[in-house]
Amino acid sequence: MDLNLNLQISKELKEASSKVKEFLDEVLPTKEPKILYEASTHLIKAGGKMLRPYLAIKACEAVGGVMEKVLPAAASIELLHTFTLIHDDIMDDDPIRRGVPSVHVKWGLPVAIMAGDLLFAKVYKILAEKLSGVIPPKKIIKVIDILTDAAITICEGQTFDVSFSHLEKVSEKDYIDMVSRKTSQLFKAAAEVGAIIGGGTAFQVKRLGKFAGLLGIAFQIVDDVLGLEADEKTLGKPVGSDLREGKKTILTIYAFKKAKKKQKEILFSAMRKDSSQEEILEAKKVMEELGSVEYAMAKAKKYIEKAEKQLEKLPETDAKKSLINLANFVLKRNF
Amino acid sequence: MDLNLNLQISKELKEASSKVKEFLDEVLPTKEPKILYEASTHLIKAGGKMLRPYLAIKACEAVGGVMEKVLPAAASIELLHTFTLIHDDIMDDDPIRRGVPSVHVKWGLPVAIMAGDLLFAKVYKILAEKLSGVIPPKKIIKVIDILTDAAITICEGQTFDVSFSHLEKVSEKDYIDMVSRKTSQLFKAAAEVGAIIGGGTAFQVKRLGKFAGLLGIAFQIVDDVLGLEADEKTLGKPVGSDLREGKKTILTIYAFKKAKKKQKEILFSAMRKDSSQEEILEAKKVMEELGSVEYAMAKAKKYIEKAEKQLEKLPETDAKKSLINLANFVLKRNF
Repeated sequence: MDLNLNLQISKELKEASSKVKEFLDEVLPTKEPKILYEASTHLIKAGGKMLRPYLAIKACEAVGGVMEKVLPAAASIELLHTFTLIHDDIMDDDPIRRGVPSVHVKWGLPVAIMAGDLLFAKVYKILAEKLSGVIPPKKIIKVIDILTDAAITICEGQTFDVSFSHLEKVSEKDYIDMVSRKTSQLFKAAAEVGAIIGGGTAFQVKRLGKFAGLLGIAFQIVDDVLGLEADEKTLGKPVGSDLREGKKTILTIYAFKKAKKKQKEILFSAMRKDSSQEEILEAKKVMEELGSVEYAMAKAKKYIEKAEKQLEKLPETDAKKSLINLANFVLKRNF
Repeated sequence: MDLNLNLQISKELKEASSKVKEFLDEVLPTKEPKILYEASTHLIKAGGKMLRPYLAIKACEAVGGVMEKVLPAAASIELLHTFTLIHDDIMDDDPIRRGVPSVHVKWGLPVAIMAGDLLFAKVYKILAEKLSGVIPPKKIIKVIDILTDAAITICEGQTFDVSFSHLEKVSEKDYIDMVSRKTSQLFKAAAEVGAIIGGGTAFQVKRLGKFAGLLGIAFQIVDDVLGLEADEKTLGKPVGSDLREGKKTILTIYAFKKAKKKQKEILFSAMRKDSSQEEILEAKKVMEELGSVEYAMAKAKKYIEKAEKQLEKLPETDAKKSLINLANFVLKRNF
């Protein structure tokens, strides 16, 4: 049954992905200066899960709207997400993303900064141009406002992330707050925008937004777990890189809370830029012994349950079923 | 008379500047994470000339509009400009801007990237929020579209700038094309947006846009000259840094076209990151001997004349007079 769920969701995500990519090929063709446009579309071509566009599409359908109407906004949301990935990879100096070299590694810092900036501008170009005539101007401005708020919140979250003080002082509440900004806000915005374009009521927009926001938190928690537990090939980035970079994940925060002196030392020695694979594996073992993974997965499950509750009063549609499937998939995904 | 012109324009720019700053203080207060908001407003507080907001305001008034209506857009244009400055300074590794340390020097690379991103997002936040109820939604979307096009063009121009091949192969045409994208496009957009918000006809919007675009090219040429000729204190950045960074300015392009072998060698030896002050001064002398400065100033004058012609068929207003004064000021400014 899990296998069926995985297959079903994977199929639906792929369908959404190919529609979004087709649309982006059209509005973001490779033109001069080629280097800028190639760098901008590099991560999109490398293939993301396209969860955010999918959320926008299904939220639109869940309130009776059609996919064609929401497609430009869905694509622009993926651009907004990709823009943040390109800039985040620079800040964290992450060399690999989606199994390919990150943009600043392949094209250098200046082009990577501009590739991100260009994508961010293209978000608005698409909204201003491709939604005109599809939804009323007032609604376009509402969509712009929601996505802009999300972008602002992501900037704030990323700043909290890079400027967090010593890991031992970061509480789980700080972490959830940071994740709400960095990850969950754009999930929420995607669903809200989808529901607005689909013609949903204020109630429906709110519920779908909350659903997606809670899903986003669960998604990030599972992401943290996969960063420790998955294998590099399925993950598309080096395993244990969160540890090496000293990232504040729910796993490390929990581990530090529970760890004894000796265990803390092992964790600390893994959290260095030049830590060996052996040190990473030792720290991983400590975290598993302390129950970090079980704790994180239980947390994620709670957020998914809360998320699903948000959908209770929505009409029974295929789209709603898809959203619930997606929520379950987020817990069970291995990439 | 020049002194009077300078005084008059300086006074008007200061008035516009204080209105814009007052507005920005309100919409961009220092909140958490403080580091992000302080870094974002650092260059605004250091004080720019505010030419672009001034253009938007005067273009609005030139077609019969009032300043209050255009202020949010004028302020958002200054944010868009500041965003590009922050990111450009990272790419060029310029340590000083407006007499203060640049953002990445003061706060580091990650915060500087995000400070730029935040300002870019704030452009749209202001437009979506503060223009609602002031002008019809359709016009807001038009304004968003124009400023987004400008942002995209600036990204393209900056990419051409950082990826230009060997200086000797860059033609004056390449340079003008690059400047049209990097500098003049936002001047043009500012005037267009001002004229649209002021209720100008399509003809007026076009003329004011062209005026400002040509003015922008002249502005950049004079900027290149000041980069060589002004003193560091009035300029707010190190003299000769264009040379050290190997920037393609109209002065260096002209000099390389005219230079003999020995002179080229002197120019090349100045165009290194670690060139001495003596080498810079020698190169400066060569450029002056070759007539680069006179050539550039004559070019700038031609653009100003062309710009002023665009205003001929516009009604005689105080704002039109201000715009013509501004054009003359651009030729005669020393900062």
